[in-house]
Amino acid sequence: MDLFYRTGYPVVVAHFDHGIRPESKQDARFVERVAQSYNVPFILGKAHVPRYAEEHNLSIEEASRIKRYQFLFEQAEKNACQTVAVAHNADDQAETLLMHLLRGSGMDGLTGMAFHTFPNPWSNTIPLARPLLNTWRTDIEEYCTSRGLKYLLDRTNLDSRYFRNRIRNELIPELETYIPGLHKRLWQTADLLQGDQNLLEEITQKEWSVNVAQKDSGFLALRLPDFNRLPLAIKRRVVRKAIYEIRPNARDVDYAIVNRVIRFVEKPTKTKKTDIGLGLKVLLEEGLLFITTWEGELPSDEWPQLKEESPLELPGELELQKGWKIQAVVLSNQKGAKENAIKNSDLYQAWIELPHQKASLLIRSRKPGDVFKPLGMGGKKMKLSDFMINLKIPCRVRNRWPLICVGDEIAWVPGYRIAHTFRLGGKKRSKVVHLRLYHHKDI
Amino acid sequence: MDLFYRTGYPVVVAHFDHGIRPESKQDARFVERVAQSYNVPFILGKAHVPRYAEEHNLSIEEASRIKRYQFLFEQAEKNACQTVAVAHNADDQAETLLMHLLRGSGMDGLTGMAFHTFPNPWSNTIPLARPLLNTWRTDIEEYCTSRGLKYLLDRTNLDSRYFRNRIRNELIPELETYIPGLHKRLWQTADLLQGDQNLLEEITQKEWSVNVAQKDSGFLALRLPDFNRLPLAIKRRVVRKAIYEIRPNARDVDYAIVNRVIRFVEKPTKTKKTDIGLGLKVLLEEGLLFITTWEGELPSDEWPQLKEESPLELPGELELQKGWKIQAVVLSNQKGAKENAIKNSDLYQAWIELPHQKASLLIRSRKPGDVFKPLGMGGKKMKLSDFMINLKIPCRVRNRWPLICVGDEIAWVPGYRIAHTFRLGGKKRSKVVHLRLYHHKDI
Repeated sequence: MDLFYRTGYPVVVAHFDHGIRPESKQDARFVERVAQSYNVPFILGKAHVPRYAEEHNLSIEEASRIKRYQFLFEQAEKNACQTVAVAHNADDQAETLLMHLLRGSGMDGLTGMAFHTFPNPWSNTIPLARPLLNTWRTDIEEYCTSRGLKYLLDRTNLDSRYFRNRIRNELIPELETYIPGLHKRLWQTADLLQGDQNLLEEITQKEWSVNVAQKDSGFLALRLPDFNRLPLAIKRRVVRKAIYEIRPNARDVDYAIVNRVIRFVEKPTKTKKTDIGLGLKVLLEEGLLFITTWEGELPSDEWPQLKEESPLELPGELELQKGWKIQAVVLSNQKGAKENAIKNSDLYQAWIELPHQKASLLIRSRKPGDVFKPLGMGGKKMKLSDFMINLKIPCRVRNRWPLICVGDEIAWVPGYRIAHTFRLGGKKRSKVVHLRLYHHKDI
Repeated sequence: MDLFYRTGYPVVVAHFDHGIRPESKQDARFVERVAQSYNVPFILGKAHVPRYAEEHNLSIEEASRIKRYQFLFEQAEKNACQTVAVAHNADDQAETLLMHLLRGSGMDGLTGMAFHTFPNPWSNTIPLARPLLNTWRTDIEEYCTSRGLKYLLDRTNLDSRYFRNRIRNELIPELETYIPGLHKRLWQTADLLQGDQNLLEEITQKEWSVNVAQKDSGFLALRLPDFNRLPLAIKRRVVRKAIYEIRPNARDVDYAIVNRVIRFVEKPTKTKKTDIGLGLKVLLEEGLLFITTWEGELPSDEWPQLKEESPLELPGELELQKGWKIQAVVLSNQKGAKENAIKNSDLYQAWIELPHQKASLLIRSRKPGDVFKPLGMGGKKMKLSDFMINLKIPCRVRNRWPLICVGDEIAWVPGYRIAHTFRLGGKKRSKVVHLRLYHHKDI
């Protein structure tokens, strides 16, 4: 605060009373008097952090952090401040790195804190700055002494029940006996890794937009061909980001869960799906890697799905789920039909020949024991389920896949093949029908 | 060895006796007997490591490592082995990470050891493999017990004078009291960072070939426009690699030295050069960043440099250093000269008019007090040194820059400008001379 004041920055002093220590009120009054002596505005915030921690099942440290930053950014916004500046110093940074290393907190932890964080979890408009992050505690104390500035010591800093304090007060001094100057090396390591992490995150962002095919609250799909060509370091980050998209409140998406996904893609299980923890599963389908909640439904609007069994009028149209439709038209010019069928052949339309003028069409879903004689196999019969497996129709959409039937016999599996029996043969008294499957987006 | 043997790999057992412990001979005999019981070849290597360490000013650990791997790869080559396999395990990996973290050994250290290293410092043909790198020591011991395999304990492993042993026997057990399962987290961190490092090294390799403009034993030049657009993480790696190119035996190119180079490029000193340590300096020159030894000479074959003062005959030619030459021809057709001068104007040739037929030319280097009247300034006189500074002729090549003089007056600064006095004026009885500066490569 003294430095900002002297370099001419307009300052607002905000102090947060965490309500943890009995003397915290006195401390707040001390800070207020300092602010008054500089003639700068002073704002006091208060919370009973231990109660909040208990209610939300958080550690005291986590709860303090949340309440403090909420307060600071609220006040910064109210007072139209440019920046929230906090006084983390180089020792704090070294401690943070070591703490994260010991916790193994995954890929982000090792980089420690940043000089400048924007956007941050508390604001999209106001950055968080740590201008003293490369200044050692002893230098700050020396500055205070030389300027005659008084300061308070928070006695909870000495309480080794707090993990950070144990690191600061016991572990780092001990490690210094192994390697003198250790805390400086830790700081440098954090700085190096921060540079690495920034670049890797930048690459991840770019690849993210290429890799994500579909996204909803309960699932996310990555394009496999793109995913497979990523370097391992980026694969891990993309998977981690994907999991956080579905589980934004997960405490830590750790090494094991990310590794499980990557190994599954390299060597899928027979069922092509597996549980990965955090109530999530992954599954492979048609060039996509889905990460989804156990209860979550995968999107089916990419596939035609039947609402209910129904006759299909001639001419007529039947609505399926989510914008899909099937249309049937009797062709008066039977002669052009075959040519047309060959010329315009695609999977979304079919020309079939019904045996007599009175034959009618039915749309239904599959039944146990269904068989099918795909065109091009000389009338050979196969199980419909085998046909669906061979053509890789995703398992979960097979049950409601629409089937065009004549009587009980399947004449067309829309999107795939007509039956040998109903191929165009130019028989007398037969009736040629043109069928189309389409999605309302295609009109 | 037992695993390789059982999975059918042909094995050669190579044992290295470091000569550190009195019982090391017995140990070697134990290993030999084991090899015999499997009926596989056994090779024994020996060295007096403590003596070697003292002679080469190395720690016992470093010296052991060097002698051991030299022996292993020599024998592997002799025996036409596919791979040298060593038995580092997951605990070793966790220890290595922690050791490097404490030492702050810069960018590579934190990644620990690799499963597979190829090429490696000892061979370009045989890889080094660590097949047990993800197997914990307790699992290996359990395997031995269950298979009835006997093993030796190296009692130096208990000697806490060795840094690694102190880490293994004292620090890790203590850290486990902070965070149970710490050693697994360390292993995972090493694995994650290895993935990151692989990608960053790959990017560095690509950028290296783009960035390096010149390279010799005593110096290396990076192209500044390319260097400046690199992300910080890659800048650091390129600088580090550059320093290792000039100082291949440097123990560690640390954070400080790399940072000094990067800060210098961002904010160069007035002199555009600075010492960076390790007997190296950096300097900026004409879009290049040079890293060079203090004693090292920068390349000057890009610039014309005089050997010694000499008259220049008409017609005539004079050899400068390193393939540069200056040529002079008297033109008989004075009328076309001016047109020609304008049309073919480039910095490597000049047309000057000498006041009378007997005037002769001299090539010399600069002298204190030299002045010059550059063409295009209306005959205004300036210090030659200012002229050279303005045109950014690199400092180190100014002293030997060739100057074409008439009497004592400078008529042409080759590569730059002719003097106002000697411009083409078409005076009577004057003599027009065509001058050319060229490099033998240009012919």
